[in-house]
Amino acid sequence: MDRENLRPIFWEGSQLRLLDQRQIPGKKEWFIAKTADETIFAIREMVVRGAPAIAITGLFGVVLELKNIKSKPDYSELESITTRILNSRPTAVNLRTALQEFHSLLTKEFFESNEFGLFVQKAEEFAVNVLEEDIRNNISLAKNGLSLFPSSPSKISILTHCNTGALATGGHGTALGVIRSLRDAGHDLTVYADETRPYLQGARLTTWELLEEGIPSFLITDSTSGWLMSDRKIDAVIVGVDRVAANGDAANKVGTFPLAIVAKHHGVPFYIAATEKSFDFKIRSGKDIPIEMRSEEEVTRLSFLKKSDGSPILDSGVIAPKEVKALNPSFDVTPSDLITAFITERGIVKPSEIGLVFGDLALEQARR
Amino acid sequence: MDRENLRPIFWEGSQLRLLDQRQIPGKKEWFIAKTADETIFAIREMVVRGAPAIAITGLFGVVLELKNIKSKPDYSELESITTRILNSRPTAVNLRTALQEFHSLLTKEFFESNEFGLFVQKAEEFAVNVLEEDIRNNISLAKNGLSLFPSSPSKISILTHCNTGALATGGHGTALGVIRSLRDAGHDLTVYADETRPYLQGARLTTWELLEEGIPSFLITDSTSGWLMSDRKIDAVIVGVDRVAANGDAANKVGTFPLAIVAKHHGVPFYIAATEKSFDFKIRSGKDIPIEMRSEEEVTRLSFLKKSDGSPILDSGVIAPKEVKALNPSFDVTPSDLITAFITERGIVKPSEIGLVFGDLALEQARR
Repeated sequence: MDRENLRPIFWEGSQLRLLDQRQIPGKKEWFIAKTADETIFAIREMVVRGAPAIAITGLFGVVLELKNIKSKPDYSELESITTRILNSRPTAVNLRTALQEFHSLLTKEFFESNEFGLFVQKAEEFAVNVLEEDIRNNISLAKNGLSLFPSSPSKISILTHCNTGALATGGHGTALGVIRSLRDAGHDLTVYADETRPYLQGARLTTWELLEEGIPSFLITDSTSGWLMSDRKIDAVIVGVDRVAANGDAANKVGTFPLAIVAKHHGVPFYIAATEKSFDFKIRSGKDIPIEMRSEEEVTRLSFLKKSDGSPILDSGVIAPKEVKALNPSFDVTPSDLITAFITERGIVKPSEIGLVFGDLALEQARR
Repeated sequence: MDRENLRPIFWEGSQLRLLDQRQIPGKKEWFIAKTADETIFAIREMVVRGAPAIAITGLFGVVLELKNIKSKPDYSELESITTRILNSRPTAVNLRTALQEFHSLLTKEFFESNEFGLFVQKAEEFAVNVLEEDIRNNISLAKNGLSLFPSSPSKISILTHCNTGALATGGHGTALGVIRSLRDAGHDLTVYADETRPYLQGARLTTWELLEEGIPSFLITDSTSGWLMSDRKIDAVIVGVDRVAANGDAANKVGTFPLAIVAKHHGVPFYIAATEKSFDFKIRSGKDIPIEMRSEEEVTRLSFLKKSDGSPILDSGVIAPKEVKALNPSFDVTPSDLITAFITERGIVKPSEIGLVFGDLALEQARR
């Protein structure tokens, strides 16, 4: 298939066009953001999700804010909008890193010079570059992942969690990018996709991407991992990540941590596919990563697709008594000792090698 | 509250009245079975579920068959109906054990004697006795479970999976029976209930029972176990079981095995509450327990409650692309080395002590 079909984010000069992931797999509908507030809405309401895609969307939110204003604002107003964008989802680090890079390149001095038009132009170029770089990095990362598997075409079974595909990134994907590249390398792949409650990114998005790509796959509930690993040979678990601490602890979609424990119990390698944007050297260990608690309703209600007037629409139903209390942490932290390796655009990196491989990045982050 | 409200099975002489668990928590509606086929429907379609409740329902199916026939059938017809009932759900052992006991007491010789009326009467007495004995055994089991916790009132947090309450049994429940008894003993309980995809017994039934009892509880998705055990102190995981092999391996609702692995990783005791009816000494290890594969639709669609005409009804929605393939094993097997102990009506039994404590039962099963 044409990979362009799987790009979820298009910048069109005065608006950001986002594939509305709340509607998939029911229909392919685009959400147009013309203001920073509309990008914040898109991030918080999960029109767009996935740490890299959130970062790109947030950056274009700043660009839209700059392009929409009639007269040059105070720099504090620019800072206020970036703070609001940053707070729209707190766990993933990519958005914060991207906004920090933005501010270190597009400084207050530059902003307050007489070249505001140039400032806006450079801001736009920066955002476009982050989008394009994300796709390039994903492709490099995925190629590096091939080294973990036989070089000759083989039967390979992979278990993955949540959605880490083209939909979660600028394009190609991280964990699902590795899976795409394994298929392209001629392997006979079978992919098991966790449905990923409560938001069902696996059931709704990952299976959709795998079907579009023609990669053989099975949907399972999140609690089927034990049965699966004892019933069939699973060669690897590959997942994405929202933030990696300096010690290699990794925050990712809730359910990643138990999956890593179950993989270790079965001797199945557990890989995290991540570009360098996910590494946060200011966070020493997983204990310090903030975990976003989302609404109880995501657990007590369930969104689904429903045919109405001939076209599929999103609706939701109640699955628990209305008086029930629920806990909905959106992420959990997998300690580094359960992670076999990170698959990155710089190569395969064991948790103990993070400091060595990303030393320059750690220094750069410390300077910011 | 009046415990009688939570009895899901009533025998009324010529019909079996079952609390229709497909409708809970939406409404409390009774399903009436007047024939063996209606009991088979009730078991297969999960009007009734839970290994003990299934066994009781199946036995009354045989009784209904015997009471409904106009003239005495061949014994082979009786055998054929018990086989059909047995095959309605294959993993739980309670139903098989109950039917075997039935046949060893209500023999072919007795059947072919001139006292068919007496045979039917004894069959009915047998079924009523199994129902009453189940409730008595659950209460004994639950009392024994108290010894695992402090004797003075304490703060206790329990994680449970699926529904093992009054709804899954003749009454009181197994794992949830222990929880009820802990509350009655004055402990300050908090219960975390896994939603238990795909059929959501935890979200729909366990939370409902806990709310009815006023026991403080939180609903979580099945994949939240890792976050929960690292974020807060969990004193024990307590679950039920569908079949225990001679070596202590235990088949229970899918998701139990990963939960046991996660509990071990965190040093949290993992208990299985089971009456002796769940022990199958003819099965040497978990590898030999048949695992029921249920329909893909239970994974790709989701049942929920919907207000319609003012009253809640059950409906379902699609949560994945329609071309997707799904795997839906209804159970998994937890190996005995992950099980801290069984909580039984004979006391607390470590996996290594099963042969010692249940030796008489093993002999009796071998004789059948």
